[in-house]
Amino acid sequence: MTEPVKFKCVAIIGVGLIGSSLACAMRKRGLTDQIIGVDCDEGVLARAKKIGVIDDGETSLEKGVSGADLIVLSTPVGVMSDVCKALSAAADDGALIIDVGSVKGSVAKAAAALPERLHFVPCHPVAGTEQSGPEAGFASLFEDRWCILTPLVRDDEPYKAAVKRAEGLWAGVGAQVEVMDAAHHDLALAVTSHLPHLIAFTLVGAADDVESVAHGEVIKYSAGGFRDFTRIAASDPIMWRDVFLANKDAVLEVLGRFSEELAVMQRAIRWSDGKALEDAFARGRSLRRAIVDAGQEMDAPNFGRDKKER
Amino acid sequence: MTEPVKFKCVAIIGVGLIGSSLACAMRKRGLTDQIIGVDCDEGVLARAKKIGVIDDGETSLEKGVSGADLIVLSTPVGVMSDVCKALSAAADDGALIIDVGSVKGSVAKAAAALPERLHFVPCHPVAGTEQSGPEAGFASLFEDRWCILTPLVRDDEPYKAAVKRAEGLWAGVGAQVEVMDAAHHDLALAVTSHLPHLIAFTLVGAADDVESVAHGEVIKYSAGGFRDFTRIAASDPIMWRDVFLANKDAVLEVLGRFSEELAVMQRAIRWSDGKALEDAFARGRSLRRAIVDAGQEMDAPNFGRDKKER
Repeated sequence: MTEPVKFKCVAIIGVGLIGSSLACAMRKRGLTDQIIGVDCDEGVLARAKKIGVIDDGETSLEKGVSGADLIVLSTPVGVMSDVCKALSAAADDGALIIDVGSVKGSVAKAAAALPERLHFVPCHPVAGTEQSGPEAGFASLFEDRWCILTPLVRDDEPYKAAVKRAEGLWAGVGAQVEVMDAAHHDLALAVTSHLPHLIAFTLVGAADDVESVAHGEVIKYSAGGFRDFTRIAASDPIMWRDVFLANKDAVLEVLGRFSEELAVMQRAIRWSDGKALEDAFARGRSLRRAIVDAGQEMDAPNFGRDKKER
Repeated sequence: MTEPVKFKCVAIIGVGLIGSSLACAMRKRGLTDQIIGVDCDEGVLARAKKIGVIDDGETSLEKGVSGADLIVLSTPVGVMSDVCKALSAAADDGALIIDVGSVKGSVAKAAAALPERLHFVPCHPVAGTEQSGPEAGFASLFEDRWCILTPLVRDDEPYKAAVKRAEGLWAGVGAQVEVMDAAHHDLALAVTSHLPHLIAFTLVGAADDVESVAHGEVIKYSAGGFRDFTRIAASDPIMWRDVFLANKDAVLEVLGRFSEELAVMQRAIRWSDGKALEDAFARGRSLRRAIVDAGQEMDAPNFGRDKKER
């Protein structure tokens, strides 16, 4: 059982959905004395301060991280490398640095720029909504969700202690912690997150391109199934662009498998092979049941996010 | 404005999610004096009667429809032709017959077996959940959803009056009514419902086939996006098999377009074309917004089904 840990000052770099949610969760559970938001957008900082997500805002990364014993990188994956370079001089000795990105192999490479006095533990809380910005954050986002840690290849004691602190932080905000290597993470998440997002983005684009079906009809009859895809297709375009660029190999691999399966389905429809279709469709029910049973979804089907409390 | 209409006795053929929901909605709004359930499964009838969805059950179609001035065909699309043949002798003169199937071209063909004394108005309420059986039905399912009517090519006055009665029925249970021809319906719904279901079924199958990613991991990390697909992939396999067999041409057409779009995305990832990805992804947000604004989805995102009242 991992114990919750406490920090003096946390600097949140990138005050969006995940950064704000972590700030709210740490404050609510008393895991930090102070929260500094760092963002290049002053408007975002002002809004985050106004609604009590952060104590203070800072547009300068160097100033913002000074004095922080925990630095959270909640930026799109694409800027991680630049941020790490800036941190190597600016961050306090012994600071724990975590990120929350959806790809871990590229983050491990970016972390190579950091000196040994800083302890970067790559993290991926598998949680989120399709909304963005500081107002979208809420304290219970991580509860009962999984957070995957992919520690760097370092076996010095201070680093190992830092990994334990990172585990304690996530356990402290209600998540279940899993440790694995970055390559396995990137393949597993290509399956459960990246490919689904790519398919949703693609379907939404394709639906709007059938010229004999009006845009208004796509919207009116979306309750037939289409709307389920639009939720994740409404996710942040920049964040997702970076995910696909950073996890290219794994995404292309699972996309290839999906395309094969789709070709099999297409053939079954063309040849009116009802048995093949029925068998393929029957798999969905049991997997859904397993996901509900594992507490990763509600039966309602409500994604467990009515009670958003900051 | 269409006026709600009233019936003496409604026979519901197939007491599943949609049939039960219509029964509950008609009872709640006082649109019928009596509800008879017809189903080949005696257990289903007993359960439906016990929870008050139907007044009485009947396994014989002939006995069940006798005396009914409204007959609702809420069976899988594949048996529609056989049911129509049975109805041509059994149904009372002047009875209004509606179906609730997701494909309309094949239903129009099945309706050709009916004599002129019976008035079949093909209907498709674009509403549903992934659940099945009489217990899954609830009275508010059709509220603010669209119901599409695709009347047969008949211009006799009794038939035209029957179409008006069908419109009144759906308006009476809270739906918005739209009239179009069957071919256009089948293409529009291939886009907004059939293709999304096919993609969801396929993705769920493909995810479980990446042998280096454990079944348990697919479930644990499903909150990353995958779980959104599992909801509709949990839908009734028989019903959906019949949809794809009955709407083959339109589904293959929109599937072809989807595959093209997916190839474009695949190429953008392979060549690290961030601009192309970002532009494609940005479309999702605006379409989602439009769907929420049109009242076909909640922002929460809760599919609007917490308050299930029989």
